[in-house]
Amino acid sequence: MRIIPAEEFKLSREVEYGTPEQNEAVREIVGAIRTEGDAALLRYTEQHDRVKLDAASLRVTQQEIEAAYEHVDAAFLTAIREAAVNIRVFHEKQKRSSWMDLQPDGTLLGQIIRPLKRVGVYVPGGKAAYPSSVLMNVIPAQVAGVPEIVMVTPPATGGQEGINPYILVAAAEAGVKEMYRVGGAQAIAALAYGTVSIPPVDKICGPGNIYVALAKRAVFGVVDIDSIAGPSEIAVLADDSADPAYVAADLLSQAEHDEMASAILVTPSRRLAEAVAAEVESQLAVLPREQIARQSIDSYGAVLLVKSLEEGIDIINRLAPEHLEVMTEEPMQLLGRIENAGAIFLGAYSSEPVGDYFAGPNHIIPTNGTARFSSPVNVDDFIKKSSLIHYSKEALLKNGEHIITLARHEGLEGHARAIEIRLEKERGN
Amino acid sequence: MRIIPAEEFKLSREVEYGTPEQNEAVREIVGAIRTEGDAALLRYTEQHDRVKLDAASLRVTQQEIEAAYEHVDAAFLTAIREAAVNIRVFHEKQKRSSWMDLQPDGTLLGQIIRPLKRVGVYVPGGKAAYPSSVLMNVIPAQVAGVPEIVMVTPPATGGQEGINPYILVAAAEAGVKEMYRVGGAQAIAALAYGTVSIPPVDKICGPGNIYVALAKRAVFGVVDIDSIAGPSEIAVLADDSADPAYVAADLLSQAEHDEMASAILVTPSRRLAEAVAAEVESQLAVLPREQIARQSIDSYGAVLLVKSLEEGIDIINRLAPEHLEVMTEEPMQLLGRIENAGAIFLGAYSSEPVGDYFAGPNHIIPTNGTARFSSPVNVDDFIKKSSLIHYSKEALLKNGEHIITLARHEGLEGHARAIEIRLEKERGN
Repeated sequence: MRIIPAEEFKLSREVEYGTPEQNEAVREIVGAIRTEGDAALLRYTEQHDRVKLDAASLRVTQQEIEAAYEHVDAAFLTAIREAAVNIRVFHEKQKRSSWMDLQPDGTLLGQIIRPLKRVGVYVPGGKAAYPSSVLMNVIPAQVAGVPEIVMVTPPATGGQEGINPYILVAAAEAGVKEMYRVGGAQAIAALAYGTVSIPPVDKICGPGNIYVALAKRAVFGVVDIDSIAGPSEIAVLADDSADPAYVAADLLSQAEHDEMASAILVTPSRRLAEAVAAEVESQLAVLPREQIARQSIDSYGAVLLVKSLEEGIDIINRLAPEHLEVMTEEPMQLLGRIENAGAIFLGAYSSEPVGDYFAGPNHIIPTNGTARFSSPVNVDDFIKKSSLIHYSKEALLKNGEHIITLARHEGLEGHARAIEIRLEKERGN
Repeated sequence: MRIIPAEEFKLSREVEYGTPEQNEAVREIVGAIRTEGDAALLRYTEQHDRVKLDAASLRVTQQEIEAAYEHVDAAFLTAIREAAVNIRVFHEKQKRSSWMDLQPDGTLLGQIIRPLKRVGVYVPGGKAAYPSSVLMNVIPAQVAGVPEIVMVTPPATGGQEGINPYILVAAAEAGVKEMYRVGGAQAIAALAYGTVSIPPVDKICGPGNIYVALAKRAVFGVVDIDSIAGPSEIAVLADDSADPAYVAADLLSQAEHDEMASAILVTPSRRLAEAVAAEVESQLAVLPREQIARQSIDSYGAVLLVKSLEEGIDIINRLAPEHLEVMTEEPMQLLGRIENAGAIFLGAYSSEPVGDYFAGPNHIIPTNGTARFSSPVNVDDFIKKSSLIHYSKEALLKNGEHIITLARHEGLEGHARAIEIRLEKERGN
């Protein structure tokens, strides 16, 4: 792992917009689903997933879900249930209520909070199918009060027909009652526009391959979408007190995700820097996903030597990492200066996987520097607000002239008259 | 104004994505600003706005702002100041605090709320320059705690050089200290990537023409953007008790915005329907913006006759209008059933311009049916959340095996080992 002075480092990965061919393919699929509905959905499923279904078999049955429970082991079931409880408890604290502001003149202003009515969660097939991500998308929607949460996932995973039983169990444990065996751009289009078999949703979330990402982009506006996740990142800010084996293990747990993942150590300690670089090498050698992790470390990994922890924090704020671990003697003292980081892990025992799987906060976190302006998935992503204005006659008589003045200065005479007509009539009464 | 049975109505306006030529022009401008900075910014300003500036004259001076105050009348100043107070008071109620959850085993979980650091507000030139919109974008950002709010607006409005003094005064009153005379796609690109004269921002908001909208779309991801507003809409739900003159005036105050605006009355009363249609005709005849309003009413306006108010609410929920006025005998009683509407105005005195200019809630509201899943501009649009995890040794020893189980079931051995290495060491101690 290269050790470099901080000022020489720049992390930059361009956003993936797909090739013209991929965009064209997605446009065609979305258009076909929109006009032909189920017929196109079944055709693309046969074409891309090599599974021949009919409309009646799109929905996953109760029997299949029960069968999935037979396939999963007790340790998994216990762990996912405890994780679900923790995730629910954390997200419950994000809930907000509608409020009203009553004014002495009889005016009532307010903000109404309502859950979205129907949300679709996409779960990819194959190796990228993570039961934990099912919980992280479904539970916040549920806590928000979304009455209809539907999951879609490809009918075949890695060449094998049938849905990963761990995914089915995670969804059932999270409380999903409606699941369909469709994937790819065709599943996204079906959720957005609806078909006879799959009623449309208000929002689509969950990760997927490039076709899924492009389809989400294409239907945005018809429905809401979540942000399109980039490769994962971790930055560790550590001083001499940190255990190099812990730091290296945490960097590698990020690097093993994919070749484009980024793992960075920021430290003022050359001793730690060298020890971590050595540990990374020895831990890498025995890691099952060594090849992926090594390519990530070589391409996007680095140890950045800084003069002080303060300079380190400046760099962190510039990187705005998805995950930040702070392993220093007094991590809590630094918290107030950390401006940009999606999730902050403090101290030696707050290893990133604690947050990935179990502690409660969401593991879907802004990547690629977007923690500067966006947030981990949370309950607010599944609600909408409406403003409420109940103006009193007294308030209108008192303030009407101001409103008319502002409207006329913007050249909107019709606005002015809507007020004026009332003032004339009510003053006449 | 046509009166039609509700089931025959469908409002649908496609999202505007620009012509290939417009997209190409924007791509070129954004690329040039990104690589050449100020030089390109000045070149495009000369080309598009026909104003020759140098880098030193991009920023609006204190003297110009003071001169603008000389140009505006006292009635405007009083009105905009009172409006600003109301907007501030309403948005203050949207603020939220960071929170912590302390657990008995020493674990600390939390959600940190921070304002964005720097926000850019785009204000169009010409007739679409609305002082009220300056307040509606700037004040929520300010209430959120954004320390740097910068305004950009074209150096010429409607062929005349110089910025509209009402815009300058509104911005100054809202508290903007940094303003630049640049507009178009080049201003958006400068805010996103930064130039020597204009440091980059974290989020860009505010309306603009198609080039501005396409530029915002192009830089999304580098910075955050607000939603791209479509044409404005109003729906009025009224019964026999409503005053037809008030209803007509409110419909027209929407229709005068632009030819694509939509104004719809939903009512079970044929008597009201006919009276409103007649009132619309007679009020239209004397409206300065008659031509615009008439085209809007003819193309996108309608009176929808329903069998009951309940059926009317179903239609409203399907339309998800930007603005909804409820003028019925007991409007408050219907509120609980209204699911989709950006801003809800209750009763005879809550005319839409009350909310457009003065009451306090934001007037930037989701259009084109997107109130199904999005919200008026609010303080949350200018903050970001970070999750906080400070796991205790005790918690890790207790829960570590569950985390390892979940990681191994997802095939992420590196994740499992990051926990395992700690369990082994700490149990050994």
